[in-house]
Amino acid sequence: MARPPTSRDLARLAGVSQATVSRVLTNNPKVNPETRARVLQVLKDANYTPNALARAMKTGRTDTIGVFMTRVTSPFHAELLDEIGRVLSSVGLHMILWNIEHDPEETIADVLHQRLVDGFLLTSATYDSKLHTMALASGTPTVLLHRGIDDLDCDQVVGDNWQGAYDAGRYLVEAGHTDIGLVTLTHTGNTSRDRDLGFRAALTDAGVKIKPSNVVSVGVPHADGHAAARKLLSKRKPPTAIYTVTDLLAFGILDGARAIGAKVPDDVWLIGFDNTELASWESFDLTSVEQPVHAIVQTGIDLLRKRIAEPDRPTEIISLPCPLVIRGSTANTPWAS
Amino acid sequence: MARPPTSRDLARLAGVSQATVSRVLTNNPKVNPETRARVLQVLKDANYTPNALARAMKTGRTDTIGVFMTRVTSPFHAELLDEIGRVLSSVGLHMILWNIEHDPEETIADVLHQRLVDGFLLTSATYDSKLHTMALASGTPTVLLHRGIDDLDCDQVVGDNWQGAYDAGRYLVEAGHTDIGLVTLTHTGNTSRDRDLGFRAALTDAGVKIKPSNVVSVGVPHADGHAAARKLLSKRKPPTAIYTVTDLLAFGILDGARAIGAKVPDDVWLIGFDNTELASWESFDLTSVEQPVHAIVQTGIDLLRKRIAEPDRPTEIISLPCPLVIRGSTANTPWAS
Repeated sequence: MARPPTSRDLARLAGVSQATVSRVLTNNPKVNPETRARVLQVLKDANYTPNALARAMKTGRTDTIGVFMTRVTSPFHAELLDEIGRVLSSVGLHMILWNIEHDPEETIADVLHQRLVDGFLLTSATYDSKLHTMALASGTPTVLLHRGIDDLDCDQVVGDNWQGAYDAGRYLVEAGHTDIGLVTLTHTGNTSRDRDLGFRAALTDAGVKIKPSNVVSVGVPHADGHAAARKLLSKRKPPTAIYTVTDLLAFGILDGARAIGAKVPDDVWLIGFDNTELASWESFDLTSVEQPVHAIVQTGIDLLRKRIAEPDRPTEIISLPCPLVIRGSTANTPWAS
Repeated sequence: MARPPTSRDLARLAGVSQATVSRVLTNNPKVNPETRARVLQVLKDANYTPNALARAMKTGRTDTIGVFMTRVTSPFHAELLDEIGRVLSSVGLHMILWNIEHDPEETIADVLHQRLVDGFLLTSATYDSKLHTMALASGTPTVLLHRGIDDLDCDQVVGDNWQGAYDAGRYLVEAGHTDIGLVTLTHTGNTSRDRDLGFRAALTDAGVKIKPSNVVSVGVPHADGHAAARKLLSKRKPPTAIYTVTDLLAFGILDGARAIGAKVPDDVWLIGFDNTELASWESFDLTSVEQPVHAIVQTGIDLLRKRIAEPDRPTEIISLPCPLVIRGSTANTPWAS
């Protein structure tokens, strides 16, 4: 294919400076009419396509969506990002990705006010962050995906984490477990909170108490699951089942169990949350509550496009079911089939 | 924080249409001088920051880098993407991410000509793709990261995959293995090619022949490694060691070995390539050749910034060492210490 002309080439052809070409492209009145006519003729002869910036200035649209995300190296977030990219591409939209781990909140404030994008997708809303408030205040159409904020007047598409967690708890109780471990995260967002509270509710409803010593509160990484497993499984009377709030922690728990010679599911059952692709690998063969990534992303991007087209439409908050997917880390029971 | 004014608010304040505000912002000569003055005063009173698009039109810079990537759900690519985001943020640059799996090549051609970005980072250059040729032809500064194209006149930062693979082969031979399996990919890029050829060269140099029946050519996914392991390890005389060209395939091989009851490293040694974070998890405990992600990304982004500042500087092609990281999937030997 032929190399398309740059503004430098066009300037040379028209016998003017690059700055003059820019001024013509932006309709700057400082260009004299004769020069303007000559430059426009050169642009026309060269089949010059006005660039995306010039078009965006004209239409007010960039066809680009800003995605705020965190921890793309976590298997679940990588799947979420992949799906967002796939769905945006399928409707002709580009993605600007901001990793809010790496960008301090002040620079994000700048970003929000620059109007680089037609809309925002926030995948990591937390109660202690001002990001969602800032996004809404910027006036740019915004949808919360995966993580929601209760009662926030903003379009949101989330999994029903509470119900998924409840089903996991009910499954363990119905299989006869009464001594159950819970490896949980500090509740910075609705996902970790509901995945904790829904599980506890199922046990309470069934009259099963969780011993305080069976609850371990940890950080996000694999290593934290590892340490929690060693702690729970070296008790004199270790729990017979462990539930945790992410697959990544479950992988760490499985590795921690291996490290001290405990067998899953023979010695201890294990349930994660997210149902990432890795959960289906033999190395893990993990029973997990599914986060319906495809449906969340598809629904969320549909909502965002509607919001862009019709800024004053009523807010929608959509919650999608999170089914329990049973694998080898919990033995099969009649309940499961 | 106060909601910043939109062009709609400003239009209302100035008593003009939104289109008129846009025309003032783009210096369109159709606005009469009195109206222009009134709008400019309103903008000034509102502390209105000209938006990124307007600034980009003026400076010709978008402070945004276009990243072309594939398979973000593969653990290695997720780490690469995370590092690119981290380093771009640290120097005040944004990232537009295109997943070339999802975007057909025709739409990428449009993207290249839209000048949305100041530069491109290509992480998935392959010999059969026209992407790198198109990127260079677009006149936009471009750096190939991780995957290179031999003799292409373009800045490139790659790992020395050939030497890394050679060291892995030498390590197996020096540990006494003579019956060695190779699980390899079709060579669409320099990474898979050099990871294959370097390994074969080490065995040839040591006088060790690879049986044709010990070479399995597969696709990218975990499941393909799984199938390859079952094929190699159900031979009457299975290989005593397997080397493969990515960690993802190695994880599949390990799972395939588990599925048929073969133990790593007791029955068979296993070496992967990339040294992803997962390789260090107990579930895998995988010996792997390291792809120096941090150094590749840092060096590549430095080169891209230099190229943007000085388009005519000489091309640089930089190759960084890929050290062998020894773990439990290969028993330790004196050579390793």
